[in-house]
Formats: sequence, C-alpha cells, structure tokens
Amino acid sequence: MLNDRIARLLQERKPGHSLPRDFYVDEEIFRADMRAVFETDWLFACSVAEIPRPGDYVTMQIGDNPVVILRNRDGEVVAFHNSCRHRGSMICQKEQGRANRLVCPYHQWVYELDGTLINARQMPESFDKSTHSLAPVHVEVICGMVYVCISDQPPSLAAFRAGVTPYIAPHMPDRTKVAFSTTIVEEANWKLVIENNRECYHCAGNHPELLVTLVEFALPDDPLVAAQFQSLMDRSTARWDSLGLPHKPADGGTEFRCIRLPFNENCLSFTMDGGLACKKLVADFTEPDLGSVRMFRVPNNWNHFLSDHIIQFRVLPLSANRTAVKTTWLVHEDAVEGVDYDVERLTEVWIATNDEDRILAENNHRGILSKAYRPGPYAPSEFMLRNFADWYAGKMADHIGGPAARMAAE
Amino acid sequence: MLNDRIARLLQERKPGHSLPRDFYVDEEIFRADMRAVFETDWLFACSVAEIPRPGDYVTMQIGDNPVVILRNRDGEVVAFHNSCRHRGSMICQKEQGRANRLVCPYHQWVYELDGTLINARQMPESFDKSTHSLAPVHVEVICGMVYVCISDQPPSLAAFRAGVTPYIAPHMPDRTKVAFSTTIVEEANWKLVIENNRECYHCAGNHPELLVTLVEFALPDDPLVAAQFQSLMDRSTARWDSLGLPHKPADGGTEFRCIRLPFNENCLSFTMDGGLACKKLVADFTEPDLGSVRMFRVPNNWNHFLSDHIIQFRVLPLSANRTAVKTTWLVHEDAVEGVDYDVERLTEVWIATNDEDRILAENNHRGILSKAYRPGPYAPSEFMLRNFADWYAGKMADHIGGPAARMAAE
Amino acid sequence: MLNDRIARLLQERKPGHSLPRDFYVDEEIFRADMRAVFETDWLFACSVAEIPRPGDYVTMQIGDNPVVILRNRDGEVVAFHNSCRHRGSMICQKEQGRANRLVCPYHQWVYELDGTLINARQMPESFDKSTHSLAPVHVEVICGMVYVCISDQPPSLAAFRAGVTPYIAPHMPDRTKVAFSTTIVEEANWKLVIENNRECYHCAGNHPELLVTLVEFALPDDPLVAAQFQSLMDRSTARWDSLGLPHKPADGGTEFRCIRLPFNENCLSFTMDGGLACKKLVADFTEPDLGSVRMFRVPNNWNHFLSDHIIQFRVLPLSANRTAVKTTWLVHEDAVEGVDYDVERLTEVWIATNDEDRILAENNHRGILSKAYRPGPYAPSEFMLRNFADWYAGKMADHIGGPAARMAAE
Repeated sequence: MLNDRIARLLQERKPGHSLPRDFYVDEEIFRADMRAVFETDWLFACSVAEIPRPGDYVTMQIGDNPVVILRNRDGEVVAFHNSCRHRGSMICQKEQGRANRLVCPYHQWVYELDGTLINARQMPESFDKSTHSLAPVHVEVICGMVYVCISDQPPSLAAFRAGVTPYIAPHMPDRTKVAFSTTIVEEANWKLVIENNRECYHCAGNHPELLVTLVEFALPDDPLVAAQFQSLMDRSTARWDSLGLPHKPADGGTEFRCIRLPFNENCLSFTMDGGLACKKLVADFTEPDLGSVRMFRVPNNWNHFLSDHIIQFRVLPLSANRTAVKTTWLVHEDAVEGVDYDVERLTEVWIATNDEDRILAENNHRGILSKAYRPGPYAPSEFMLRNFADWYAGKMADHIGGPAARMAAE
Repeated sequence: MLNDRIARLLQERKPGHSLPRDFYVDEEIFRADMRAVFETDWLFACSVAEIPRPGDYVTMQIGDNPVVILRNRDGEVVAFHNSCRHRGSMICQKEQGRANRLVCPYHQWVYELDGTLINARQMPESFDKSTHSLAPVHVEVICGMVYVCISDQPPSLAAFRAGVTPYIAPHMPDRTKVAFSTTIVEEANWKLVIENNRECYHCAGNHPELLVTLVEFALPDDPLVAAQFQSLMDRSTARWDSLGLPHKPADGGTEFRCIRLPFNENCLSFTMDGGLACKKLVADFTEPDLGSVRMFRVPNNWNHFLSDHIIQFRVLPLSANRTAVKTTWLVHEDAVEGVDYDVERLTEVWIATNDEDRILAENNHRGILSKAYRPGPYAPSEFMLRNFADWYAGKMADHIGGPAARMAAE
Repeated sequence: MLNDRIARLLQERKPGHSLPRDFYVDEEIFRADMRAVFETDWLFACSVAEIPRPGDYVTMQIGDNPVVILRNRDGEVVAFHNSCRHRGSMICQKEQGRANRLVCPYHQWVYELDGTLINARQMPESFDKSTHSLAPVHVEVICGMVYVCISDQPPSLAAFRAGVTPYIAPHMPDRTKVAFSTTIVEEANWKLVIENNRECYHCAGNHPELLVTLVEFALPDDPLVAAQFQSLMDRSTARWDSLGLPHKPADGGTEFRCIRLPFNENCLSFTMDGGLACKKLVADFTEPDLGSVRMFRVPNNWNHFLSDHIIQFRVLPLSANRTAVKTTWLVHEDAVEGVDYDVERLTEVWIATNDEDRILAENNHRGILSKAYRPGPYAPSEFMLRNFADWYAGKMADHIGGPAARMAAE
C-alpha cells in the first residue's frame, strides 16, 4: 500500500523539477526513506581525527539505531550497534568519549573493543558468551573520513574511494585534530537540507558572510566564470597544476562530487576578511592559495578541504520534518589554539551560514506543505539538485522493488 | 474506512447533545475536519484595517496551507497560497508586514502584488513565467471583514453578506485601525473552542470581568429578559430604533448569527467599570449607548461591534487538540493612543476572558477523552450549540458523500 | 491486524529472555497494552493517608481516562470517572484537593460525594438527574492501599489481599500521613520501568546511596545469603518470629510478591547512614530493626514497609516511551516534621535512586529501538523479570483472544 503510494509519486515526478510534495513532508514516506536510504547506504560518521587513540569513540543515531564508532587496540576504526546483548541497553551514552573496554552501565557486561563479550557477571555456567558479541556495523575509512553502513550487504565504495582520494589525500585529514564541533537541528526534511547545500543560487540573497570568499559558480565552464572569473580561474589552475593538485570535476555520477575551486580574488579561507583562519597549514603545505576541494556524497555528507583547515558536515534525519546537522572544523594536529588559530575566527562564517541555511530549509518545508505546492523547475545552476532528485527516485524505485519500478522512476 | 467510521459516528449522534467522543479528540477525524470544513468553507482572515496600504500583508495558516492576504496596487484585497512556484518555499514569513513586491527569500523570484511572476533570475529563456504565478485564494470583503476560501468552488456568501451588513456597516469597520492584537493557543479541539463561545451558561461561574458589562441572555425573548432586563431592553431598543440601528436577530440559520443586545444597566463597553474604552467613537457615532452587535459565522469567527471599538476573533485549528485564537481590537482610525484610549483598559476584559475560556476548553477536552464520556444534553441556553452540532454533522455528511449520508446525519 | 502482529510477537518470544522489540517501543502495541492491562486490571492509586477526610480527593490519569478517588461522607473510599455528564469536562482539576461536593467548573453541575447529580441549573423540567450520575470506578482498599479498576468486570483481588495483609497490616498504613510526594517522568516504556524495579542485578553499578542499606539478594535461599549474610538473616528472622512478623516469601505467583528482608548489618532504614529516618515508629512498634516488607503487584506498584516509614510507588504509562512514577513517603500520623523527621533525610536515598533508575530505563529504551536488538537472557537474579514477562505475555494472549493464543504465549 505504501509501496503503491511511492510508485504513484515516482510516476508523477517530473525530472528536472523538485519532488512531489509527499516525498518531503509525509511521515510514512520518511520511514521508507530510512529503510531505502539510511539503513542501506554508506553514511558519513566522523573523521578519524575525532577518535585518535584506542578506545576513543563517537556515537551517532541512524534513525532508531544507536551506533558507536571507535578505534580498537590495533588502531583500526570499527563500529557496532550500540545496544547491549543482555537486555538491549545503550552502552556508550555520550556523544563522544573514551573507554578502555565497553562496559554496559546497566549490569556491567564487558565487551572488548572488538565487540567480544568478555565478562557477564552472575550469568550461569551454561551461558555462552561467544554468541553474545556486539553486532558489528560495516566501516570504511577514506582519507580519514569514516563511513558506516548498517545494511547486511553494503554497496561498493570503490568508485568513491578512487574518485576522491587524489583530491583529498594531499590535505592529510588523518593528521588533523578537532578544533570545534557543533550540531544544530533544522525543522525541515533531510532532502531539503541536502538540496539547500547543492546549489549557490540562493547565496547572493542569503549568505553575506560566505560570499566574502566563496565564488558562486560550481563548474569551471559556468558562464559566470567566463564573465567574471576567467583570469582568476586561469591563475588558480596554473598554480594547482604546478603543485600536482587535481582540480577538474571528478566523475561521480549521482553518487558524489569532487572538485577544486578558487576562492574570490585575494581570499584564502572561509573567514570574514578572506585571510587564513589557521597560520599552520594542513599537511605539509606551504602554499596558502589552494582554493578548496568541495566534496559531497549522497545521502548525508559534504566537506571542504582548504589549505589551512577542513570542514565536514554530517546530516542525520530525525523525523520527516527534523534533521540534525553536525559541523566539525579540523586543523593541523600540531596547530595551537590562541597561537595558530582562534576558534571564533575559524568558525564564524559557517556558523552564520548554517543558521541562514536552517531558516531557508525550514521555510521551504513549511511552504511545501501547501496543497498549492507544485514541483517547480530547477534553474540551470541547480543541476546538482536534478542529480540528487534522480538519485533519490532511483533509491526509492529500488526499494519498492524491481526493474519495472526503477524504469518508472527514470 | 475513515468514511465508515464517520458515518457510524454520525448515526450514533443524538441531536441536542454534545458530539460523540471521537469527533472531538481523534486525529483522523481532525484531518477529515480540515478537508470537510477548513479547506471547503469561507474562513475569517483579518480586518481590512490590518492591511490599509498597498503591499500590506497578513499571513495565516489554514491547516498545512500557508496563505498570504494583501492589498494590491488598486487597493483591493487579494490572497494567495504563500508558496513559491520555484521550489515551494514560503514567501512571506512574518505574521504581518509590508512588501512592494513579493520576493521569495530563497532565490529571489519576484511576484507582483497580483501574484504574477515578474522576475526569475538565472532561469533559461525557455522558462515560461506566465504559467508560474502564485496560486490565488478566493477573497470576499464584507463590511471590512476579510474572508478567504481555499476551495476551488467556494460556497456562496450572499446570505451572510446580506444578513449582517445592516448591523455592521453603521460601525464602519473600514475606518478603523488596529489598537492591539494577540494570539493564544488552546490545548483543545477547535469545536470545543467554538462551543465555548456559543453559550453564556458558563459565564456566571467563570467570567467575573466579562459579567461586569455583558448580559447573559442571548435572545430578546429569553425568560431571563422578562425577569430582569425588560425595562433595559425596552429603553435600549427604543434608542436604537430612533437611530435606525437594527437589533432583532438576523435569520442566519446554522451559518451565522447577528443581533444587537444591550450591556448591563449603565454600561457602554467591555471595560472593568462599564465606561467607554475609547473616547473617540467609531464611525460618526455620537451616542455611546449602542450595546453591541454580536456576530458569529461558522466555522471560525465571532466579532463584537460596539460604539467605541470592535473586537474580532479568529479561530484556526492546529491539530486535534490544539487551536490558535487571535483577538484583534479595532478603534476609530483617528483615535490617539494615550489620549482617546489606553491599550490596557481596552483589552483587559477580553484578555482575562480568553484565558478563562482557554482553561475551560482544555479541561473539556481532557474530560472528553475518558471512555466514560457520553454525549450530554445541551441546556436550553445552549441552543446555539445544538445549531453548531447540526451544522457540523451536515458538513461531515456532505464530506463522506451523498444525500443518504446527509439524511443519516439529520 | 494488530492482533496478528501481537500473536506473531508472542510466538517469537523466548521465555527467560527480554521481550521482542516492538513490545517495548511500538505505539500500536502500547495502545494494546492500555486496553489489555491498564483498562482491565487493578491499579494502585494512592494511600488512604492521602485522603484522610470526607471530600479529600486524589486524581490520576489511566491512559486517556481521568479518574478521581475520594473519601465520601461515610468515610469510605470511592472513585469516579472524572468527566461531567453534561458536556464531558474534567471536574476535579488538581492532583489533589478537597471538595464539599463535586462541582463541575464549566457550568456548575453539582454532584454529591457518592457521584449523584444533585443540581444542574437551567436544565429543563424534563431533564432526569437520576440518569446522569458520575460513572463509578471500582475500588478496593487493602491495608490502606487504594486500588482502582476501570474495567466493568474487575478480576478478583482476594488472593492478593489474603497474601499481603499479614505482612503489611502490622505496619498500620492507615495510621500514617504523607510526609512527601514527588512525580517524575521517565522517557521509557512502562515495562522497562517495571523490569528495572524487579532486579537488583543493576544495583552495584548504579545505586551507591541505596546500597548503604539495601541487601542485594532477593530470596532467603539466594547463594549470596549463604556466602555473606547467613548470620544476619538468622538473627533477623529470629527477631521477627519473636514479634510475630511474617517474613518468608508469600506465594503470589506472577501477580504479586511480598517478603520481609533485612537491611545491611546495623542498618534500620533507607537513609544515608542507615539510621532511622523518623524517630516515631509507625504502628505501635518499639523495635526499630524490622528490615522492610518489600511488596509489589503487577502492573504498576511497589512499596516498602519499614519500622519508621512507608514508601509507595505508582507507575502510570503516558505513551510508548513516557512513564510517570509517583513516590510517596508516609510516616506515623503523629510524627512531627522537624522533631521526629526531616524531609530531606527521609527522601534523599530514593530521590537519588529514582533518578538513577530513570537514566537506566531511558537508555534501555533507546538501545532497544535498535534493529540489532535481540532479546537477551535474564540472569538468575532476574527471575522476577521472567515472571513479569510471562505475566505480560499471558495478558496479551488473553487480550487477542482465546485459549489458543494463551497457549501460544506459554
């Protein structure tokens, strides 16, 4: 019945237009989203910089599912469903922390950092600890970015890994540390949060802080480039070529995007004056004018890699009309707060921008609730939304089953 | 299935009694209410005094539907679904404001005050602006009261207009200005908010401020009149007749009610001492002793028209158990605050009364949730609730279809 | 359809293990819980000490159903659905209060303390007051504990009454007064709140305040007793036998439990130093070393009866993931605050313990939401949870009907 509704909505869908109303606002569709996308696909979880030492952990909530990501004694990143095998209690209860072993606070069952149950006090002789390990969650680490998947059969990340590594690896995210982190909740569907991120058509009217430094065009051959920025582009790409840093758009299809683009003339970083936010550059860079690698991957992540810091964004849906967005700023692991960087200067542009985007997404959601809402045409500069809508329709078609549904969606 | 439930509930209904439980408390029935009543019928929106100049607007929420009401360049009142034709964002985001043109804050699509899309920057040549106007909402203005209807086929307002105009027009609401406005949310079903307003059986026990001035009887031939107020009534109606002001009950059926009734002996207005709230009378009145025209119209409005000010009430359901009630006080457009009127004196009676009514409606709602609730008999002084219940049952019968259902409801 | 789901979940259930996920977290199952358990069974409401005089009342909310419990003019405890027979308003609106008669605040219909409608002003001659009494709720008082049942056919309380009276009556709860009372809301399913109370396996890791005095073993023949407490047990039971106070476990099956157990060596009461909380003992006791009678009854109550005070706990579900827990401390009716007892000293152990339990139940709930949750095995010391799960499964089987379902549940 729900599948029939989804099939009808997919048939109504007009490519190049925003999605039919119920995809954005309906609670039943939201639960289908969770199954079709968030319980199926890889999700960005955190940076390895957030869990540098064995026993360091980060928790996250994938819909109903609490998950813990940690570094084990071998220095590898692993993840588990954060639910004790005794009576189900959540084990790690803080957003982040450190544990020598994972001890359930309820009855003190003790798990090794590899998930093995090693002590269950008061349980009888007949109890078999070996069948009560924590349920594992799939993990892949790509250039310091930790992705997890709670599906039993995760899709391949090979193309993504191959595609983004040349751009990101030079920034050495695994040699950074967390300078600041913040989570906001937007009263909007997660797809509106993503769509908001996929275009800068809205920037001129809404993001004064961001536009100090960010160029609005998203493609090197954008007509805007020709008009205003050709000389900037030419000088920038010449510099990056000389440093061996790739910049042309990667071929990520609808799955991901990766590109290096310049900041505005004379701007080096996301600050209110365009100057550096951190004197100590990331990796071994000595050249500060690297623009930024802009990377996103559906469904829940976008990052910026600059010469002096890295910003990562993690989107997690809470309900049809609530979405959590976590932003983390990373700087070189040896950078010293107060000497090399100042947290307020480092974070003010994106804290302001996030809040502006929150308001836009919330009003977008409220307007779409209207019975008068009709999917409207994406502008040419919204080509990434077209991709996103196509990707999402494909996921939903797969979910309700079979190639027939998939064809209907295309 | 829901229609079957509604049909069964309508069959259970006993005329002259409060409605079966689920009509008041069930979320599914609430959604049917929204379709059967609020998306079908005319709703009171505001006074023309709230939008005196071209570009002045007021927003309201009709269930999921954001609507904007504004005055266009020709001075006419028009209304639109407040949802951009690009990606659906809500356009006007304040409760009230002023705009030279309607500019969507998301991507700055620009609409004329008549709803025409006049600019959509960055859209390609092929984009047809003429098919992307704002969706219009029906509007009628009656004696300065603005009613809107989001149905494609609005019912006729002719009888209402004809019936109330002789009573209200002399008070010239279109020559007033807003002195104060407040919105409260009641944790109660909208029908309980309306029922609470339709009788003064509860006044003696609950409204000390209101009863300073308000007579509790609702009909000129009420036995209470004979006993206590006949001389007051006789003097009052003689005065009004001499001024050409109608006072006998209009024939509004179950749709509306309009009548002029006196205040208590020596009282002129809704104040704590019965004296005037505004020295400058509305219209060109020189006689302060006009009692008040009490008017209501189902489903969401009641107003009082006095010699010195006008009060209008707007009810908007938020969910099965939440209802917003907006109260607006209007005075002569030339009245001067601090000279002719004092806002606290003007508003204190009804601010207190509204809060008392909120508590009554909330406890009514909580008690009806009980499985022991049985529809009880309306008292004779609750005859307007009988009308309201009959009207509501008719609307629901129409909604689930056909004359058979309608007959079952009667 | 819901019944089919419940039947499937009952079949999945493994005895001796925590329940299948949806029994703890699903809103539909929660509504079935309310019908199968809370609208069917006896529920602990309050102590007679809370309503000592005629007209004293306590209100409680059984799911959607507001109920009022009061003492009538004959000194008997009676209860009614707290919903006026006129238009359904809740009548008694405070958590507790006193009323000479029950007067509905809406239109002042007046009910005698026996529920009879004695005045309905303005109603016509034809109105029959005798058919508009308040709907009664079944009440039984056992050793000062008031139980209510809103079912038309309440089950028998005879076994419970017979079983617990010998233990509790000597503490004379009907000669106590309320020293303090507090209600907290736990963001957890009611069954997790109950399970948390049914074992002390979690005490060592979580309840430092409680373990000053409480012995963790729950049965006289617990292996823990042999190892550590045999001498304490022997001395305690000898003392109680000499006073004629029963202490061996009552045979309550899955319905209730009653037992007297000692405190830790040299401890007399639930205080931070083990000393008495109230110098004036309850009843006519002169011996302070009585341990405590620990009593619970499914679904919503557990109490402790000590030499110097009594603590009672009342659990009321609010939704699938919210539960209200009210705790009341009773002392001898002649005890004087500031002289015989100090409220902070009396309450600090259980206020702290309740809050610790709240956190445990909340994290238990959050972890069970995980799709990786699998019902885990109860430890031997969790034998009362096995009983509880069996009892609950039986109730649900009865609810969905017939012996077949009941067999499937066993």
